[in-house]
Amino acid sequence: MNSLCDLDKKDLTNRLKRIEGQVRGIQRMIEEDKYCVDILHQVGAIQGGLKKVALKILDKHVHGCVQRAVKNEEGDAVIDELMEVLAKFTD
Amino acid sequence: MNSLCDLDKKDLTNRLKRIEGQVRGIQRMIEEDKYCVDILHQVGAIQGGLKKVALKILDKHVHGCVQRAVKNEEGDAVIDELMEVLAKFTD
Amino acid sequence: MNSLCDLDKKDLTNRLKRIEGQVRGIQRMIEEDKYCVDILHQVGAIQGGLKKVALKILDKHVHGCVQRAVKNEEGDAVIDELMEVLAKFTD
Amino acid sequence: MNSLCDLDKKDLTNRLKRIEGQVRGIQRMIEEDKYCVDILHQVGAIQGGLKKVALKILDKHVHGCVQRAVKNEEGDAVIDELMEVLAKFTD
Repeated sequence: MNSLCDLDKKDLTNRLKRIEGQVRGIQRMIEEDKYCVDILHQVGAIQGGLKKVALKILDKHVHGCVQRAVKNEEGDAVIDELMEVLAKFTD
Repeated sequence: MNSLCDLDKKDLTNRLKRIEGQVRGIQRMIEEDKYCVDILHQVGAIQGGLKKVALKILDKHVHGCVQRAVKNEEGDAVIDELMEVLAKFTD
Repeated sequence: MNSLCDLDKKDLTNRLKRIEGQVRGIQRMIEEDKYCVDILHQVGAIQGGLKKVALKILDKHVHGCVQRAVKNEEGDAVIDELMEVLAKFTD
Repeated sequence: MNSLCDLDKKDLTNRLKRIEGQVRGIQRMIEEDKYCVDILHQVGAIQGGLKKVALKILDKHVHGCVQRAVKNEEGDAVIDELMEVLAKFTD
C-alpha cells in the first residue's frame, strides 16, 4: 500500500538527517569518553526530535488517509490500525 | 569532565549504528512513499532502541559515577544532576 | 458539547473506581512509612491503569465523534483537536 | 522494610488528595456525558500530577536510601532495584 498521506517530505527528511547526525554524535561522545550525563541529555534530545517526526506523520495520516477511508466507508479498519500504533506511542 | 562510567562502548556503539541505519531507513521509506503507518511503527522501534541505550548508560552512571561521588561526600550534587535528566526521560 | 462517543460507562467507571482506591492506597502507604520503592511501583501501576482508560476513551472518540465529524465535512477541526490531545499523551 | 526516605508526607498527601478528587471528577464527567476530549485532557492532567509525585519520591529515595546504602557498601543491590523501577517509568 502506498502512502496517500501527503507527507511534507522535505521537512521530514531534514529532521531525520539532523537526528541521524545526532545519533552519530552520540557514538563520537561515547568513543571520546564524554561525561555520561551529557550523553543522556543528547539521547533525550533525539527522542524529542523523533516524537516531533511521529506527530507530524500522524497528523498527515489522520487528516489524509483516515478521513479518506471514513468517507469511503472503510473508517473502522483504518482507525483500529491507528489505535494500535497510538498504543505503542503512549508507552 | 570525563566519563568515569565505564560504559560498554562496543555494545552501545553497535546499538547506535543499528539506530542510525533505522533512521536512514525511515528517510528511504518517506522518499519511496511507503505507507505512513508502517513508517510510524519504525519510528516507534527506534524510540524503543534509544530507550534501551539510555537505560544502559543510566545504569552504568548510577552504579559508577553516582556511587563514587557518594563515597567522596559529593553525592548530593551528582544526584540533583541525575534527577534533572530523569525528569526529562519520564516525560 | 455533549459526548457522542458512546463510552462504555460501566467499564470506565469500574476502572476509575479501582484507580481511586489505588490512589488512596498510596496515601496510606506514605502514612505508614512503607518502603518508597514499593510506593513507586504502585504509582507506576496507576499510570498504567490511566493509560488504558485514556486509550479506551480515545478509541471510542475516533471511531465515534471523529468519524461522524468527517462524514459531516467537519473532520479537520475535530482532527486538529485530536492531535492536540495526542501531543500531550505522547509526552 | 520501612521507608528511610524521609518523604515530605504533607506535600505528597495533598497532591494525592487532589489527584483522588480529579479521578472522582472524571467519573462524574463520564456519568454526565461530558465531551470525551475534555475527559482526555483531565486524564492527562492526572498523569502529570502522578509524574510529579513519582519524581518527588524518587528524589528522596536516591538522596536518602540510595546514598545510605552506598555508604554501607550495599549500593549495588539498591541501585539494581532503582533501575528496575526507572525502566518502568521511562516507558
